Amino acid sequence: MTAMPTAPQSEQPGRIMSREMSEQPEVLRRLLGTGAPEIQETARLVAAKKPRFVLLTARGTSDHAALYAKYLLEVRLGVPCGLTSMSTITAYGAKPDLRDVLAVTVSQSGGSPDLVASARAAREAGAITLAVTNNPDSALAAVSEHHIDIQAGAEKALPATKTYTASLLALYLFVEGLRGGDGAAATALPGLAARLLDRQAEVKSLAARYRFADRMVITSRGYGYPTAKEAALKLMETSYIPALAYSGADLLHGPLAMVDNISPVIAVVTDGRGGQALQPVLDRLRGRGADLVVVGPKAQVEQASAGFVLPTDGVPEELQPILEIIPLQLLAHEVTIARGQDPDAPRALAKVTETR
Amino acid sequence: MTAMPTAPQSEQPGRIMSREMSEQPEVLRRLLGTGAPEIQETARLVAAKKPRFVLLTARGTSDHAALYAKYLLEVRLGVPCGLTSMSTITAYGAKPDLRDVLAVTVSQSGGSPDLVASARAAREAGAITLAVTNNPDSALAAVSEHHIDIQAGAEKALPATKTYTASLLALYLFVEGLRGGDGAAATALPGLAARLLDRQAEVKSLAARYRFADRMVITSRGYGYPTAKEAALKLMETSYIPALAYSGADLLHGPLAMVDNISPVIAVVTDGRGGQALQPVLDRLRGRGADLVVVGPKAQVEQASAGFVLPTDGVPEELQPILEIIPLQLLAHEVTIARGQDPDAPRALAKVTETR
Repeated sequence: MTAMPTAPQSEQPGRIMSREMSEQPEVLRRLLGTGAPEIQETARLVAAKKPRFVLLTARGTSDHAALYAKYLLEVRLGVPCGLTSMSTITAYGAKPDLRDVLAVTVSQSGGSPDLVASARAAREAGAITLAVTNNPDSALAAVSEHHIDIQAGAEKALPATKTYTASLLALYLFVEGLRGGDGAAATALPGLAARLLDRQAEVKSLAARYRFADRMVITSRGYGYPTAKEAALKLMETSYIPALAYSGADLLHGPLAMVDNISPVIAVVTDGRGGQALQPVLDRLRGRGADLVVVGPKAQVEQASAGFVLPTDGVPEELQPILEIIPLQLLAHEVTIARGQDPDAPRALAKVTETR
Repeated sequence: MTAMPTAPQSEQPGRIMSREMSEQPEVLRRLLGTGAPEIQETARLVAAKKPRFVLLTARGTSDHAALYAKYLLEVRLGVPCGLTSMSTITAYGAKPDLRDVLAVTVSQSGGSPDLVASARAAREAGAITLAVTNNPDSALAAVSEHHIDIQAGAEKALPATKTYTASLLALYLFVEGLRGGDGAAATALPGLAARLLDRQAEVKSLAARYRFADRMVITSRGYGYPTAKEAALKLMETSYIPALAYSGADLLHGPLAMVDNISPVIAVVTDGRGGQALQPVLDRLRGRGADLVVVGPKAQVEQASAGFVLPTDGVPEELQPILEIIPLQLLAHEVTIARGQDPDAPRALAKVTETR
């Protein structure tokens, strides 16, 4: 059998990232189908242990998934949470008392040695341990008492996309499970995600705006804040534009000095209380003449310099992050191509980061 | 009585910030003298309630002081901590169960309505509440069960400096108190701080390097990480250079793609385990030809493009953050003046930020 001739990668920059972004509806559907019952069962086992505090550990893209879970756990479950400062364990050998603590570690590969060490230390310190990974055979899954497989399939592109949305949905289903719910509100997501992916031409035209940008600010509040952080990371690691993510409230505490009419701002406006809490920040930005692009509901986009309308009708605010990152992933991809770079080949990234 | 003629502010840009930076040795000395016994007593009362988790709430500069406290509490006390996502309370009305939780709110003014609301909600939810402020008459002090006064004197400059180092020392003394210690290791700090302030000429020469920078990355690990975040905020809010702070480990997870020989990097290298854990990141940065400026021990500065030597001999790693921020405050001040701007008059800042 003769191999089909393939175009050299440089003729199709971003091909791998593009393919993986397009798999997202299928990945979400799989998780809602074959993945959900197992996640429900894990949630039942964990809930029976009545954790009183949750510590979330992750790095990079997975850290933004962990932050999303923090909002869910605090708002919907009323359990206080913390994000782990990993060096306290791995560099300083801290021995915290973790009885009654659920320690959740999120990692696409499940292979980073520091995450494995941190999960092992948490288990030894008395925590209930849960790993959320894309690899059930990973070292992280092995050292953790419980494991959730996000079933996203192999991820080859260096910028993580499908494993991010899959992690969010898996964490949503887990937290719903802790509450005794079935996560049925999520069933519309795969179809909605497919419709967002169909709007690549719109994103391409937005991307032209950032062809020569030398900095960007991305802001949000509440459930949209992890999206702002993930969008900033995606833009940086593909296009190398320094993209700074701030919660709207923090933006007013200093970095706003940096925003003027040559610093483009992207606001992620959820349809709900987070978006409402962001309004004074949006007013202030408009008042300063900022170039403001909104990803959010139609009425919000209409008051901005430009934007991308999210059809959020009927999607509860806590599920919107799984959709609203998609146009921003596409944007990172398109901006990078517009700047003559290849989103599949960032200069310095390795897929499994071996920090210790 | 005739008022003395005063020079117009533009003839002495940064005069107010400069004066407040120079007050730091005196502020630290006051806190170690008249402040310490009261902090010890507060620590004794809180320790008697045996908190099992700590939630820290703050914004802007105070958030970096809170992060410093998180490292202290986890490493030296073994109590797991979380930083509050404030919108979960103020926007979403989350009702977490906070029994056995110590809720610490750090705020220079003690006046931000969202912090007051968050502290009140924490108290109602069963938390032991502690406010750390520069104003014992503030609303935040009033709604909190315990209060620590950082006694820094009125802070007039918009970029916070002396209240930052005072908050760090107050939090150090508090955590030492929780451990039953007396914080005697801190007595050398005022003298060392004064010697750092005397080295303004060195900082001025470093500042020339950033005269035309259009981005900066600041990195550290462990106890130095809050310093990196605070230095980035200080640089942004005075000079408007987009300064991105990353823990060394996170830097390897993506943003490193952004660093090349035109992206200057400042590394805060503590003399201790955090600095050791940063070594692989420094090697990687040198390997990529980054312009690397080190604030840290002499041996580290000698391997970098340039730097500022910190005399850390005898100062335990956990106290170094109180010193290492000082040259970086001076740097923000000098870079801003070198760029023809006034550090006392950032474009968009108000001293009490009224986010809700």
